Amino acid sequence: MKTLSENRAFGGVQGVYTHASDACGCDMTFGLFLPEAAQEGPVPVLWYLSGLTCTHENAMVKAGAQQWAAEQGIAVVFPDTSPRGKGVADDAAYDLGQGAGFYVNATEAPWSKHFRMWDYVAEELPRLLFNAFPVAEELQAISGHSMGGHGALTLAMAFPGRFRSVSAFAPIAHPAASDWGRKQFTAYLGADETKWAAHDATLLMKKRGFDGPLLIDQGTSDQFIDLLMPEALISAIATRRQPATFRMQKGYDHSYFFVSTFMEDHMAFHADALFA
Amino acid sequence: MKTLSENRAFGGVQGVYTHASDACGCDMTFGLFLPEAAQEGPVPVLWYLSGLTCTHENAMVKAGAQQWAAEQGIAVVFPDTSPRGKGVADDAAYDLGQGAGFYVNATEAPWSKHFRMWDYVAEELPRLLFNAFPVAEELQAISGHSMGGHGALTLAMAFPGRFRSVSAFAPIAHPAASDWGRKQFTAYLGADETKWAAHDATLLMKKRGFDGPLLIDQGTSDQFIDLLMPEALISAIATRRQPATFRMQKGYDHSYFFVSTFMEDHMAFHADALFA
Repeated sequence: MKTLSENRAFGGVQGVYTHASDACGCDMTFGLFLPEAAQEGPVPVLWYLSGLTCTHENAMVKAGAQQWAAEQGIAVVFPDTSPRGKGVADDAAYDLGQGAGFYVNATEAPWSKHFRMWDYVAEELPRLLFNAFPVAEELQAISGHSMGGHGALTLAMAFPGRFRSVSAFAPIAHPAASDWGRKQFTAYLGADETKWAAHDATLLMKKRGFDGPLLIDQGTSDQFIDLLMPEALISAIATRRQPATFRMQKGYDHSYFFVSTFMEDHMAFHADALFA
Repeated sequence: MKTLSENRAFGGVQGVYTHASDACGCDMTFGLFLPEAAQEGPVPVLWYLSGLTCTHENAMVKAGAQQWAAEQGIAVVFPDTSPRGKGVADDAAYDLGQGAGFYVNATEAPWSKHFRMWDYVAEELPRLLFNAFPVAEELQAISGHSMGGHGALTLAMAFPGRFRSVSAFAPIAHPAASDWGRKQFTAYLGADETKWAAHDATLLMKKRGFDGPLLIDQGTSDQFIDLLMPEALISAIATRRQPATFRMQKGYDHSYFFVSTFMEDHMAFHADALFA
């Protein structure tokens, strides 16, 4: 693992690191904010998964997470959204290929060689993180934005007991029924839709739910709201009697201005669960 | 004037607008955050001037100003750092030409045709702002980062009574004596150094000072600290008995992580002056 940069921020350190990834078969870069409290021992960690077109960097510089993470004494990890590089398959569309991994293990050519983002964020990066940094494996929470909200919700429901809490900003909530999902799942996972169910937050909510607190924010003026399908997920939440807070935020769109506006609330929400 | 975008943020609106500039002879773009309070009437306004290579956008998305501006009920305007476009002179170096206007009116060819950033931020943009938006001309404050800190300090001292308060993050503090200044002032203003004095915060501090509160933050690990010369300005401040707060912040560098870390303090500092 190589350190690309470390900047002092809010009393802690915002680092960027790169490493050879076995899961993805290429070098992968991630950001990690360690609060000052990490100098004294392992701290809780929040996974923040980003959306389409983002690298590890977008949320790291635009979501305003560090200040609240510093205040709460929580580390935040910002993984990339896909494998990258010259030898890695790609597509001209912004929503397929590099920058659009959808947090799945692709089984179909040409994607299956590198696009194993599920293994990367669920197994490989956690191992690396807990070995190399003062973060507490038993105190994890997860969040994300848009495609990253989809990733956060599906990971949280896939690994009961791993995450104390889950939140999402304008998540892709029902990809198996949306143009943000069907195209990518067909490409990455193939045409058999039964294989998609493990990666659809609405279907997982119907089947499993989440054993812990759940927070979702969605802007009413989100330009992508028809693709996100929040109504499907909230309906599943209500039907299941899943404890959750779902907020439709008046006038907000899909941008980082929306994410940064509500970041304080999300960090406080996760802190409540992590320090309970 | 044309609206390029408006995003809801922290209960207010982050807008981006473009307009034909007489001062610069080209289209100019700026960001303006209006807090929710602006719906009820004119609010105070903080000018935030950015540094080398920045457009109107960098601080707008990375400095974390909006949340504190929203809390305090202050508008924030983010001007660009130079004229831009195909017909506008430029230089291959990052620190001369487009993205590096240094907030002066160039008198030398080829810069004098468009590089009139002093007139732009001191006269033209204020007129446009006070005509078109609910911001209070009698309640202005000014801040900036690096080259923008230089701009903020020189504007504040050039127009006594206009700004209630001035602050700077790692300002270029003595450009007439630094490689961040001598090169640009020679290009823009010519070799006669007497013409530079009006654009050097240290020389202005010796001659005039500022009639109001002044706050400067500087990181001890700033990779550009030798070019910034904070010691020259703080010496002038001390010699003059200028009321000021100057903070050397341990371990911080020149990045937006430094700026965003201390933005809350700067906004509270300006709010104290604006709402006094």
